[in-house]
Amino acid sequence: MFITRRGFAASAAALGACATFNSETSMYGLIGKMRAKPGQRGALTAILLAGADAMPGCRTYIVAHDAEDADAVWITEVWDNADQHRASLQLPQVQAAIAQARPLIAGFDEHHEIVPVGGIGLARS
Amino acid sequence: MFITRRGFAASAAALGACATFNSETSMYGLIGKMRAKPGQRGALTAILLAGADAMPGCRTYIVAHDAEDADAVWITEVWDNADQHRASLQLPQVQAAIAQARPLIAGFDEHHEIVPVGGIGLARS
Repeated sequence: MFITRRGFAASAAALGACATFNSETSMYGLIGKMRAKPGQRGALTAILLAGADAMPGCRTYIVAHDAEDADAVWITEVWDNADQHRASLQLPQVQAAIAQARPLIAGFDEHHEIVPVGGIGLARS
Repeated sequence: MFITRRGFAASAAALGACATFNSETSMYGLIGKMRAKPGQRGALTAILLAGADAMPGCRTYIVAHDAEDADAVWITEVWDNADQHRASLQLPQVQAAIAQARPLIAGFDEHHEIVPVGGIGLARS
């Protein structure tokens, strides 16, 4: 979802750099770690979850708390393809979540683009 | 799955340290990044996926390639609880996967315990 906004320039570079990635046929994913402002992780989490309904092409969207870092939130996303992910950023509920969450975020510790290849929990939405 | 073996001592410490974690009622998860030996990522991936069938209590198990790092594999796991995850390490197919995969692994770059709180792709297995 919105943790990926900052990654679009990097995304284009990654698509070019990764010989195995095919935006037409590959799944697309993101693993990110964001840092809430102190005491705001619960509120931030609620916003992240509320914005996650009905996102076409989204197979997995997991919001999790780091077990050892009281301000850290991990998000793992899997989409049918990169285009579906990009389109999701225009959805009204996603744009609303971005606006609501931004004041609660201290920063982003990690942001990784991934090519999911299989497993459990990847059923089509 | 097996990327978590090395984390058991840390796991116990994390359970104690995180006030919001309850091993009886909370979901339990892991996000890890492992590094295949050069040229072995495909073979390692196949082993990781083959070992992932029929793991009781596993809600999500996603194997993904890093889009920018040709040797890196990310795994995101969500379990009903920490006990189910621990029990999975005794499953025959998991133990077989551990034995087969070990020679292909150069190392572990990241290993994070998480408390999943919601989202998409978390249906009970």
